[in-house]
Amino acid sequence: MALSKVTGKRDVYLDDRPWEEALEEYMAYLEQKGALNPGPPEVVAVEEARGRVTAAPVYARVSSPHYHAAAMDGYAVKAALTFGASETAPKRLAVGSEAIMVDTGDPLPEGCDAVIMVEDVHFVSSGVLEITQPVYPWQHVRPIGEDIVATEMIVPANHRVRPVDIGGLLAGGVTEIYVHPRPRVAILPTGTELVEPGRELRPGDIIDYNSRMLAGLVTGWGGVPVRKKITADDFEALRRSLLEALQESDIVLINAGSSAGSEDYTAEVIRSLGRVLVHGVATKPGKPVILGEVDGRPVIGVPGYPVSAYLCADLFVKPIIYKKLGSVPPARRKIEATVSRKLVSSLGVEEFVRVKLGQVGDKIIATPISRGAGIIMSLIRADGIVRVPRLSEGYGAGQAVPVELLRPLEEIKETTVIIGSHDIALDVLANYLRRLYPQASLSSAHVGSLAGLNALKRGEAHCAGTHLLDEETGEYNVSYIQRLLPDRGVVLVNLVYREQGLIVAKGNPKGIRGLEDLARPGVTFVNRQRGAGTRVLLDYHLKQLGISPDQINGYEREEYTHMAVAAAVAGGVDAGLGIRAAAVALGLDFIPLAEERYDLCIPREYWDTPYIQRLLTVMNLPEFRKEVQALGGYDLRDCGKVMWEQK
Amino acid sequence: MALSKVTGKRDVYLDDRPWEEALEEYMAYLEQKGALNPGPPEVVAVEEARGRVTAAPVYARVSSPHYHAAAMDGYAVKAALTFGASETAPKRLAVGSEAIMVDTGDPLPEGCDAVIMVEDVHFVSSGVLEITQPVYPWQHVRPIGEDIVATEMIVPANHRVRPVDIGGLLAGGVTEIYVHPRPRVAILPTGTELVEPGRELRPGDIIDYNSRMLAGLVTGWGGVPVRKKITADDFEALRRSLLEALQESDIVLINAGSSAGSEDYTAEVIRSLGRVLVHGVATKPGKPVILGEVDGRPVIGVPGYPVSAYLCADLFVKPIIYKKLGSVPPARRKIEATVSRKLVSSLGVEEFVRVKLGQVGDKIIATPISRGAGIIMSLIRADGIVRVPRLSEGYGAGQAVPVELLRPLEEIKETTVIIGSHDIALDVLANYLRRLYPQASLSSAHVGSLAGLNALKRGEAHCAGTHLLDEETGEYNVSYIQRLLPDRGVVLVNLVYREQGLIVAKGNPKGIRGLEDLARPGVTFVNRQRGAGTRVLLDYHLKQLGISPDQINGYEREEYTHMAVAAAVAGGVDAGLGIRAAAVALGLDFIPLAEERYDLCIPREYWDTPYIQRLLTVMNLPEFRKEVQALGGYDLRDCGKVMWEQK
Repeated sequence: MALSKVTGKRDVYLDDRPWEEALEEYMAYLEQKGALNPGPPEVVAVEEARGRVTAAPVYARVSSPHYHAAAMDGYAVKAALTFGASETAPKRLAVGSEAIMVDTGDPLPEGCDAVIMVEDVHFVSSGVLEITQPVYPWQHVRPIGEDIVATEMIVPANHRVRPVDIGGLLAGGVTEIYVHPRPRVAILPTGTELVEPGRELRPGDIIDYNSRMLAGLVTGWGGVPVRKKITADDFEALRRSLLEALQESDIVLINAGSSAGSEDYTAEVIRSLGRVLVHGVATKPGKPVILGEVDGRPVIGVPGYPVSAYLCADLFVKPIIYKKLGSVPPARRKIEATVSRKLVSSLGVEEFVRVKLGQVGDKIIATPISRGAGIIMSLIRADGIVRVPRLSEGYGAGQAVPVELLRPLEEIKETTVIIGSHDIALDVLANYLRRLYPQASLSSAHVGSLAGLNALKRGEAHCAGTHLLDEETGEYNVSYIQRLLPDRGVVLVNLVYREQGLIVAKGNPKGIRGLEDLARPGVTFVNRQRGAGTRVLLDYHLKQLGISPDQINGYEREEYTHMAVAAAVAGGVDAGLGIRAAAVALGLDFIPLAEERYDLCIPREYWDTPYIQRLLTVMNLPEFRKEVQALGGYDLRDCGKVMWEQK
Repeated sequence: MALSKVTGKRDVYLDDRPWEEALEEYMAYLEQKGALNPGPPEVVAVEEARGRVTAAPVYARVSSPHYHAAAMDGYAVKAALTFGASETAPKRLAVGSEAIMVDTGDPLPEGCDAVIMVEDVHFVSSGVLEITQPVYPWQHVRPIGEDIVATEMIVPANHRVRPVDIGGLLAGGVTEIYVHPRPRVAILPTGTELVEPGRELRPGDIIDYNSRMLAGLVTGWGGVPVRKKITADDFEALRRSLLEALQESDIVLINAGSSAGSEDYTAEVIRSLGRVLVHGVATKPGKPVILGEVDGRPVIGVPGYPVSAYLCADLFVKPIIYKKLGSVPPARRKIEATVSRKLVSSLGVEEFVRVKLGQVGDKIIATPISRGAGIIMSLIRADGIVRVPRLSEGYGAGQAVPVELLRPLEEIKETTVIIGSHDIALDVLANYLRRLYPQASLSSAHVGSLAGLNALKRGEAHCAGTHLLDEETGEYNVSYIQRLLPDRGVVLVNLVYREQGLIVAKGNPKGIRGLEDLARPGVTFVNRQRGAGTRVLLDYHLKQLGISPDQINGYEREEYTHMAVAAAVAGGVDAGLGIRAAAVALGLDFIPLAEERYDLCIPREYWDTPYIQRLLTVMNLPEFRKEVQALGGYDLRDCGKVMWEQK
């Protein structure tokens, strides 16, 4: 725990309160300070009011229609003149006096109270028409106020104006309405390490992307974001920025410096000007949040990690913005899903786990994705969020859990779920799938080949990507499938052949030529996780060479994808085993070791579904094949071909 | 059928095709003309990209983190130096050389591969710290590319950019992206009768509100609306407007003139410049739609009635805009609901019935609202749409039907459903309810007192508004409830006493003094619907006076609300029976006849639910009472009081 540079006191550990309790207390406090009241109403033109929130109910100024209107093209008449008309005793009416031609929308002429449709009359001469049935009064007439009666309420207060409301308000003679002002939300990016996007990066620099993400969220919730310049980690500078921000905004977000580290001044600065009500909540991510108040305005310390920042904004900022607009945030749709793997969570914190979702058979399967607070890609890829409650230690694989949706269920149901080994060609496949079938998407979870086949066994995916070498036979995948899915009808379709080899730094400075060099002192290595086909391949070759894992410096460091291995090499590790495309992508050198077969294992029951048939169509597209080939190290000679079947 | 003024030919009847078939043919035709392709991609700053749709997949330019970063505040070390540390054999490290202080996010110093949390060290002197357990390599380190690896795809093509995507793109070093241009949609209001909003209205004028509603819809779907000036019903003028619109837009909507009347030129104008593929579909509303094409651009004739216009835009314009953005419209959520009344629909047309929804007991109840194509309020009030298929004649009361939601289900579940007699105080109640409980709302269906009690019987509402006079006893409501709901526990709570009387024109030009004057020749009347308490009251008094209904001119003209009756009087009818507030609202004169009691009949099982308890809270608010009193003719002496109970 760091000493505060300003107060000289050791800062306290953060609180560990349930977030709902913290929010409730905070809102009650803000309410009492008047900080949640909408600002003074603004007048806006109805035409410009889409998305704005009414500050008062709006009443019609005129009726619609504001006159008795013909509802059909035809002839206006006095209904009484038509009584008694029949096939045998038709009635004749003088056009222009007894029957007056009207178009839809025309005012009903004086003395008329009904309209005869043009289809129901016939002319006996140019000035006389004949009808064979009577009309009742008010037939085919839209009386005054049929739609809207003057003084009637068209929309209530605190109502978000939609296009149909714009139509109705204008129809009711209203051209301007009172709306709540959009809450102005100042966003203060703070941190000596922050740099603006687009700058040349030095080690230690962090691109200030959080403030832009927060600004987008604020806009979506109906606020006006005011992004301020980056402030260094300096008590006085932050204090000045906050004072300035308070001048021009209703809510202030300080991102970050919200933790209790040696350069975290946010809480102290808020405390020096106002009050900190909560510092720390029992959520993961998002723990180091600060809920404060200065001059009757909410001031919130938003944590620095992007997922924490998102969550904190969603839990604490969103309800304030909505409340200042007289409303509550719309609830996210909740469904029940089956978790595909064991989900361990700490007792005492509520964890917000991002998951991919897909419908497999009659179940919606939720597959957790990376849980780090720093992994913004986990939010970008997420279809939903599983909340593991504070008093739970998690869920077992196969358990049904509630999921909050981040994407419409209808879209999720159009998602092909592929699980297993990672290959870059899958990204290209996903892209072309979407291009060909805009409603479809591909969700791929990278857990390794073996785990992929096990997921198929549990009914959690439509297919699995696998490249498992049988050390005995030298053949790929078949023996593993026979062992793991003995009773399952499956089709094994090739996606690619690809080169596996050692990814090494540009120019190969350590002069690595093969796996035997990994045992050399001074050579560092990065491995793939257990169950990955690439690791099976490594172990197979090491065994043949008589090298034991403990001779390799870095055998224990596990990464989950080829790209992560390549990134580790780009970051200073000497070597890793992976596919050529990953080396090519990051401009690294590559020492080929073997060509291997990467197949899709498809349970027979999904073969005829769009989930699979769409993939097969894409695999036959020349553009798709060309783009995969361009990645380097791929051979698509059998792409889309059935390699083996099990009835 | 009208003669075309231009061609001299009788125009054909409109087509009657299923809309899906028409849409499919139209889209295929447009596709082949290249009219559905996105325009050339635009470059936008990532910060400004919220809501835009990517034209190509976006790949990371840098990794995130782009250096090995400390993931905790603490000390960076080489893990190997800590091996063997334990409680009994602690290891000491020299601060500054063997253990280097780092904050979260700092780059890992050269030679270090792990971070020890600040909490896990203790200082033996100012320059030496001690640890009692080893750290493993890469502990508390975010390696390069942990979140995003350079070259990795961050978002695919045809992806609508969300705030989190903005974060991820900037984190991956991307500051500009290619997006599809927003389709430009010209909207041509046409009709000699149209006037701009805010103008003084003469009979026959129609406010051009459709074009503004359409503009709002287009914006929401991702297009750019370009509203043009109003064009008169004139072939040449419309042709010029269309040619001009085609110069500057990707899609043209002509509203209206799409029917087959004598001044409907839209189809002819499109045909004169290009092609009409479809004129008329088998929907209700929305039949007279025109799907055309000029110069490789979709040109659509949108019908003039607002609900038809909305539906046509939703069915035909929305998919075109989305397709030009590489995507498909998001599907609306569908649920199953129980229709509260018989829903008769014509064979051969698919009818889109707007419904109010509410959860009563364990069922979601759908109550159809006004079905006229001209009633924009039916869209404003709607919670969902029930589609009655072409080959169905409708649904029976109590039948389960699929409903497409226009509001989130979570909101619908917070709605108190009140059905029965209409009273203006209910609007005030709805307003205060929403103000006090922003998540709550009140849905009231005006069917008359008797029908309301019957709806309670069928379990379709939380309470019913009723003012039924027992002719024998002179008491209100009780005997009716005993008869209709004999076995049901109910609580009868008073809402208001109100003055009923004759609503007559300002200044009472016909000198009407009482009901006996309704039988006078030359006096016209407007009645309420059968089952309305007000009609019961009328019949009761007429009987006492010995006046028979056929002596009253207009006894058959039925309106459903007090305001509609008042509007009819404002429109020229001499008298109607209704409440004082309706007369006051429209500046009419009022001749009081009786004070009557308006109660809420509440089944016991709902008494303790928020649906009812919230209403009772609002009924006790002084502001609510004051506002109702200000309407005129109300007495709230018993408001909220239990008048009678049935166990």
